[in-house]
Amino acid sequence: MKKILLASTSTLFGQEFLEYLFPEIIELFKNSKEILFIPYARPGGISLEEYSGKVKGAFKNLPFKVRGIHEFKDPKKAILEAGGIFTGGGNTFLLVDKLYRAGVMEVLKKRIQDGIPYLGTSAGTNIGGLTMQTTNDMPIVYPPAFKTLGIVPFNINPHYLDPDDTSTHKGETRETRIKEFHSINSQPVVGLREGGWLEVSGKNITLKGSQSARIFRANHAASEMPTGSSLNDLN
Amino acid sequence: MKKILLASTSTLFGQEFLEYLFPEIIELFKNSKEILFIPYARPGGISLEEYSGKVKGAFKNLPFKVRGIHEFKDPKKAILEAGGIFTGGGNTFLLVDKLYRAGVMEVLKKRIQDGIPYLGTSAGTNIGGLTMQTTNDMPIVYPPAFKTLGIVPFNINPHYLDPDDTSTHKGETRETRIKEFHSINSQPVVGLREGGWLEVSGKNITLKGSQSARIFRANHAASEMPTGSSLNDLN
Repeated sequence: MKKILLASTSTLFGQEFLEYLFPEIIELFKNSKEILFIPYARPGGISLEEYSGKVKGAFKNLPFKVRGIHEFKDPKKAILEAGGIFTGGGNTFLLVDKLYRAGVMEVLKKRIQDGIPYLGTSAGTNIGGLTMQTTNDMPIVYPPAFKTLGIVPFNINPHYLDPDDTSTHKGETRETRIKEFHSINSQPVVGLREGGWLEVSGKNITLKGSQSARIFRANHAASEMPTGSSLNDLN
Repeated sequence: MKKILLASTSTLFGQEFLEYLFPEIIELFKNSKEILFIPYARPGGISLEEYSGKVKGAFKNLPFKVRGIHEFKDPKKAILEAGGIFTGGGNTFLLVDKLYRAGVMEVLKKRIQDGIPYLGTSAGTNIGGLTMQTTNDMPIVYPPAFKTLGIVPFNINPHYLDPDDTSTHKGETRETRIKEFHSINSQPVVGLREGGWLEVSGKNITLKGSQSARIFRANHAASEMPTGSSLNDLN
């Protein structure tokens, strides 16, 4: 049975890294002795070691150990034997590129579908969707494909940001960008605001957290979905 | 002799489309009877026809005609015979994908290098750099490559946006994204603020307009370059 938590962001303003998610994380990984951390997204260009160290520090009082995937000789074997997996945020292009080049995209999908507890934040949440094509990140590397895990039957836009009516900046709003996505792609997009997350429990997908989500469908006006809603019919 | 204008944005807040650039555009295309417009970036997902119509309307009082590249049977021939070229903004992934699939990336580069007057705004400016990898756009389509025209020896980030110190949003700042770019790429990046443009005249590259630009180099702190500065040594 799938047990997944896909969060918009790792960190809320004024809080410590992952702080707001601790109760959920403890529940998600309650049967896991060791968590495998996938640091491939390398936020701000930091190293795999630095990033894993940050996560180990944040989780030091939680009842499980953390190891980075780069600490294993064989990343595929590491995923096959993991008791729980956390993919952190950063640059989605880097993350997807590395998952493909390490040859682990398929095995990661398979294990999550088989019920290994999975936590994603930001880029780690984006890859839970059908494709990474609604990321906000810069294409700093050319990945072999944009297809991702598809553990939910739609796309996700993490860190969803409402248009700022007071802004004089003429760059595209997030909503305009997603509209451009829908000019050539058909799957729905969940605009997941910071403070919100998707909880997948078996066949049920539920919006949780402090925020409503913005739902975008091709050829439909965008709509709001309050926290607590089921997304089972979104596909 | 190269004659190029690469603008951060087509439109300034409170102004009409391209309004602030009219004096420059008239000067750039003073010897052109007809301008070829490349609408492939399709902002907001509008059609090639709609986008070209918008440009024709904006230029209706200027002393040259405008035709969209999609009005020609052979897009390569259209570029070879054009008296001036304007590539408009929108989604850079769409633009680059279409330039490659139409087989015109190389011929466009060649003609600009040979001295055909070229105007780019936003996505049309981004492709003037070595690669499109410092775009702000969503990867709504998977282009055959990220390499672009390289008519300037660095990358460009159009619509460059300074960090907002009052924001509580935890998504990456533009500066963080460019830092991530430099964790695996070496070319400099010009953060071109709205209101600024690069003028290329033969071998000279000059920053023009109302704004300073922010210059990013791998392994260096970011720096400011005032308008009027030469970028001849940036590579």
